[in-house]
Amino acid sequence: MKQGFLHTLSRSQFQELLKAFAPTAAEPVPFDQAHQRVLAEGLLSPEDLPAGRRSAMDGYALAARDAFGASESNPAYLECLAEIEVNRAPDFALEPGTCAWIPTGGFLPQGADSVVMVEYTQEMGAGTIEVRQSLAPGENVMEQGEDAASGEPALSAGSRLRTQEIGLLAALGIGSVRVHRRPRVGIISTGDELVAVDAKPQLGQIRDVNSYTVACLAEEAGGVARRFGIVGDDLDGLVAVLQTALADSDLVLLSGGSSKGTRDMTIAAIEALPDMEILAHGVSISPGKPTILARVGDKPVVGLPGQVGSAQVVMTVLGQPFIRHLAGARQAFEEILRPLRRARLARNLASRQGREDFVRVRLEPAAGGLPLAQPVMGKSGLLRTLLQSHGLLVIPAESEGFQQGDEVDVWVL
Amino acid sequence: MKQGFLHTLSRSQFQELLKAFAPTAAEPVPFDQAHQRVLAEGLLSPEDLPAGRRSAMDGYALAARDAFGASESNPAYLECLAEIEVNRAPDFALEPGTCAWIPTGGFLPQGADSVVMVEYTQEMGAGTIEVRQSLAPGENVMEQGEDAASGEPALSAGSRLRTQEIGLLAALGIGSVRVHRRPRVGIISTGDELVAVDAKPQLGQIRDVNSYTVACLAEEAGGVARRFGIVGDDLDGLVAVLQTALADSDLVLLSGGSSKGTRDMTIAAIEALPDMEILAHGVSISPGKPTILARVGDKPVVGLPGQVGSAQVVMTVLGQPFIRHLAGARQAFEEILRPLRRARLARNLASRQGREDFVRVRLEPAAGGLPLAQPVMGKSGLLRTLLQSHGLLVIPAESEGFQQGDEVDVWVL
Repeated sequence: MKQGFLHTLSRSQFQELLKAFAPTAAEPVPFDQAHQRVLAEGLLSPEDLPAGRRSAMDGYALAARDAFGASESNPAYLECLAEIEVNRAPDFALEPGTCAWIPTGGFLPQGADSVVMVEYTQEMGAGTIEVRQSLAPGENVMEQGEDAASGEPALSAGSRLRTQEIGLLAALGIGSVRVHRRPRVGIISTGDELVAVDAKPQLGQIRDVNSYTVACLAEEAGGVARRFGIVGDDLDGLVAVLQTALADSDLVLLSGGSSKGTRDMTIAAIEALPDMEILAHGVSISPGKPTILARVGDKPVVGLPGQVGSAQVVMTVLGQPFIRHLAGARQAFEEILRPLRRARLARNLASRQGREDFVRVRLEPAAGGLPLAQPVMGKSGLLRTLLQSHGLLVIPAESEGFQQGDEVDVWVL
Repeated sequence: MKQGFLHTLSRSQFQELLKAFAPTAAEPVPFDQAHQRVLAEGLLSPEDLPAGRRSAMDGYALAARDAFGASESNPAYLECLAEIEVNRAPDFALEPGTCAWIPTGGFLPQGADSVVMVEYTQEMGAGTIEVRQSLAPGENVMEQGEDAASGEPALSAGSRLRTQEIGLLAALGIGSVRVHRRPRVGIISTGDELVAVDAKPQLGQIRDVNSYTVACLAEEAGGVARRFGIVGDDLDGLVAVLQTALADSDLVLLSGGSSKGTRDMTIAAIEALPDMEILAHGVSISPGKPTILARVGDKPVVGLPGQVGSAQVVMTVLGQPFIRHLAGARQAFEEILRPLRRARLARNLASRQGREDFVRVRLEPAAGGLPLAQPVMGKSGLLRTLLQSHGLLVIPAESEGFQQGDEVDVWVL
């Protein structure tokens, strides 16, 4: 199906197209190798966590009614029956008017419903404990099943396994989980002027940079990057490499040469394949406008701009969230958790309305609070501007720019 | 050398002690496997990059003096001699009054010193090009050696190899670099109540969680984590495991049980080793106060608090920057590049002056701008509060807290 002229899309329109691709299939992975992976299936808790009522503090386990109304000026007095050990459930029960020393994490004895912190008590000798605080039942107690209840959902499908989720799996003894496979990202560099990194370029030629920078960014987002080499100005060659890459990848990224010719060849190579659709040709971000999105069968192909800085912006803004989406993350395109560095803009920055501008900035310490965001200007083909930058400042499509001194959010690269 | 009572240190005092430990030794690594590693030695550029003068734009290469004073109303007219190809250096020179078509990235011919963008030109037929813009020499040209000059420093020792630095290595054909070895982080869990993840806990026992959460955080910071198992209330056993771990690690993390007894045992085990020094016992952050720092020979040992949430805070605030420091990063403890999420506090938060408070928060979308930071309260031993959190809000030591509606920075976890 050949496509005619396609309008430039807004970033959110482009993202909607990306979201329509399905995440990768599930695979079983040992829980301690699943950090940052995404659950493909919800998990029920196999047991109660905690397994019983545990103390959240060092102190005395007691029945709250036995310290009813207790205060500094009107303490209650209880008999201490025993010291509970942290590794053993107590085998005795509290009678009215008694308590037991309990360490943090210790299991409460029968008859106790709360724990008074040691700071609010005093040993009076002869086993008598003065309690100078009134307690509510349940106070300083982790209830049985409060973290996870047997048979109830513990983690839902689509949960990213952060450190704390790995901790929950450990606590529940869940040794293996079904997570989405890491997306295999095939990378092809195109451009007649490109030579391999280990080659000596002739005058006019340059070494292939984008295969490596794009691979770094793909891996950073959780993908497994594989480079399929460099293709020059050879349509048949590109079609063949693209087919090979598609067979072994969940997503193929074509890093175009800088010239318009290689962009046209990217489109032509995609159009030479069966069951394809060019979904977008152009997105209204700068840099990054000439980005291409296509579907071949059910697999996505993205054509990145050739300039290394432009490719980096497109990968950061669209490519990395897309790889996280393919890896199963819900809300991969949501911005709420994107880490940003608040900074103060060092000089005026104008922007054309109707497109999002991503301006490279350097962050410099400044007296009294926010760092200074210093725009790094320079020719877009240079690496120097990237090397000098710490992050990207986003000028929204509806804005005409920012003024010197404005507070801005910087995406840290 | 036994130590007496040690005062609780401020975070910056504690960090100064951490900074005194030397980074790991250098090792050679292929450049495309060195992403996020830190250079152990500075690199000189083996060649000029770009290798010649290249165009930053699609347009016409010319001598700026031939378009002197050109404008919309007063264009200059030049004869176009040739089309330069992107992959070949031109073998001709421009005469006065001539120009050549040049693609982005193309090498300039002799006699040209600037490039006029195609948008400011018009083909007039018969090889004549109308130029409607005056140019400065060098305009839209990447100068030879502008990214890196042969024999000059390209990257300095201590540089973290981000995506763009990997790109520079590719562009220069530097196939291998000497970077600091990834710090080997040995992890020991202590606590009589702990059982292995694949065991069924008896009532009173719990599974070892911290070995796994701490390992995730160590790996996230660039370390190679290795778990040395669980040690119960057995000083000789702990001394033996600590020695084994020290022999194979650049840093040993002891994750204490939740009880005071295991903390004391950590100190006793360190004190049983030759050439040791307890450097700090206590840091004025909350949670995380009972953190221990010691030196055994020239290797650091850190005793983490036993509560999983406290250990996570200490790892985030001190442990991860320390691992980055050991991995060679300059300014590993500098905060300027720490990614933060600006948010609006959902309710008042009080804090005691004199200690830094790290409060877990959940970020929720809010109408009109900043997300809402909702403090997640709950008993400190529970995993639930960690699972519900997105980040940590820092209340500085000198502050008495924040008010509802205050703008705050959240460390995204």
